[in-house]
Amino acid sequence: MTLPIHFEDALAARERIRPFLPATPLRSYPALDDEIGAGIRVLVKHENHQPTNAFKIRNALSALTLLSAEQRSRGVVAATRGNHGMGVALAGRLLGAPVTICVPVGNNPEKNLAIRGYGATLIEQGRDYDETVDVAKALVRDQGLHLVHSTNDPAIIAGAATMGLEILEEAPDVDAIVVSIGGGSQAVGALVAVSGLRPGVEVYGVQAAGAPAIYEGWRAGRAITLESAATFADGLATRSCYELTFAALRSGLRDFVVASEAELADAVRLMLRTTHNLAEGAGAASLAGLRLLRDRLAGRKVVVILSGSNIDAET
Amino acid sequence: MTLPIHFEDALAARERIRPFLPATPLRSYPALDDEIGAGIRVLVKHENHQPTNAFKIRNALSALTLLSAEQRSRGVVAATRGNHGMGVALAGRLLGAPVTICVPVGNNPEKNLAIRGYGATLIEQGRDYDETVDVAKALVRDQGLHLVHSTNDPAIIAGAATMGLEILEEAPDVDAIVVSIGGGSQAVGALVAVSGLRPGVEVYGVQAAGAPAIYEGWRAGRAITLESAATFADGLATRSCYELTFAALRSGLRDFVVASEAELADAVRLMLRTTHNLAEGAGAASLAGLRLLRDRLAGRKVVVILSGSNIDAET
Repeated sequence: MTLPIHFEDALAARERIRPFLPATPLRSYPALDDEIGAGIRVLVKHENHQPTNAFKIRNALSALTLLSAEQRSRGVVAATRGNHGMGVALAGRLLGAPVTICVPVGNNPEKNLAIRGYGATLIEQGRDYDETVDVAKALVRDQGLHLVHSTNDPAIIAGAATMGLEILEEAPDVDAIVVSIGGGSQAVGALVAVSGLRPGVEVYGVQAAGAPAIYEGWRAGRAITLESAATFADGLATRSCYELTFAALRSGLRDFVVASEAELADAVRLMLRTTHNLAEGAGAASLAGLRLLRDRLAGRKVVVILSGSNIDAET
Repeated sequence: MTLPIHFEDALAARERIRPFLPATPLRSYPALDDEIGAGIRVLVKHENHQPTNAFKIRNALSALTLLSAEQRSRGVVAATRGNHGMGVALAGRLLGAPVTICVPVGNNPEKNLAIRGYGATLIEQGRDYDETVDVAKALVRDQGLHLVHSTNDPAIIAGAATMGLEILEEAPDVDAIVVSIGGGSQAVGALVAVSGLRPGVEVYGVQAAGAPAIYEGWRAGRAITLESAATFADGLATRSCYELTFAALRSGLRDFVVASEAELADAVRLMLRTTHNLAEGAGAASLAGLRLLRDRLAGRKVVVILSGSNIDAET
């Protein structure tokens, strides 16, 4: 398997983030097992319990704790529409680093408020994500800020891998982990953890059918860029494959499925009904994937990730 | 102040439950502060992150860890309609004690499933809570089971007090804590913690306007029993005052308010919108109370408890 980081990088990331983030719970719900059926025992990894309500804080803390004191005091910048920005903003506050978050004009006001609430400077500029990235890059050039990419950074993957470590240490007898894929850090992180601790555990990927760039690339065997990405699951709205994760996904994922908007919405409702936990669309994608993989995973012990709950009131 | 247990009892309970329950997060949300206004800084105590999604697991573990090995192996019984039963069932599983939970006929099937899921024996018998209590008492008499009362037990109060300890140790500068009152264990627990750590911190109580037995008793200065209790906030549906908590509430609460059904439902929605966390009616009552106390608490730092998220799908 081609992995972009070593298992030891994941262990090191865990040491760095441990003072800030206790392990999240891994829980079973009889009502959920009943609804999934096929003798599958489901374990839910509660990343919605993280501060910022999403797993991304692992990645941001992993990246920021690696910076030199000098770089940290100069500050960091990220281009984002949501959870990544909240993660970087909070990590900056925890570590005393000034944070600037660049979002497109018209970005979700709830997320903007949350980002500002963590003390970050918010710059609302650019018509879409790509233009916003240019705004962030200008700050790197002009002010010497450090750019925290949401995916393409070994420290980010190592941060995401800490979740896989927690799962496998708490439940070494699981058979499979189903992971939603936005940029792929979480899935590749899981592959890294599996490779070091339980090479027999299968990792499955899920993307939104409306934004299937990585899925299509995975099937085709080469990186693909799509013209658009349309899904209510914000966190999964990617149009291209990322250098640092694509090869690992190609060689490591046991299989890959896409969930329709209706299947994602159903999974949000199923999660709410059976676990009484709120999930955003991307946060329930893993559960939507499990349902699609149900027959193949019959009788197995399977982890799904409740990766975020930052659904907005309207949705 | 008249308290039914000593501060040291709370400390001892914390030592007993610590191996099973890490401290829950205490978090601030800028969007919530904005909506509350009046310069109030709100801290949310996330008891919805507990296993069983509710604070009651503290109480049950506190009670069951005090039993002798012999009593534990004989087993325990509780009469309940919900969160208390889930707490006792899980505590029994963690400690290897057989658990029997008595619920009224027609009890919420989701809660029944969850209770069975923790391995407890469920007995659905009795037309209402009072009849169900008789069923439980018969098991105490006939099978020597230990009855775990939801409120009237010093070990239960000590368990609830561990939440207050966590709050005051993490945020020693808070000015007030607003606590919903079902039987009163959580409020009296908070008073115990305050008395030992921060006697200046004010504790406020909230009941549902549809089930105001303790509120009416508090105002009248004597225990009161009502004919009925009507509220969608299950966990607050009590008809009478409890011996072990009433005097403490009388002497310790700074003030006491009641929230209407509409105010409780509004608080559930406000919690969801600003923190992206789900609360059941009783679980958001504390926030409903804060809104009613807004003018008095202007400019202060106030803790509200998100005490449970076991709302059913219909609600």
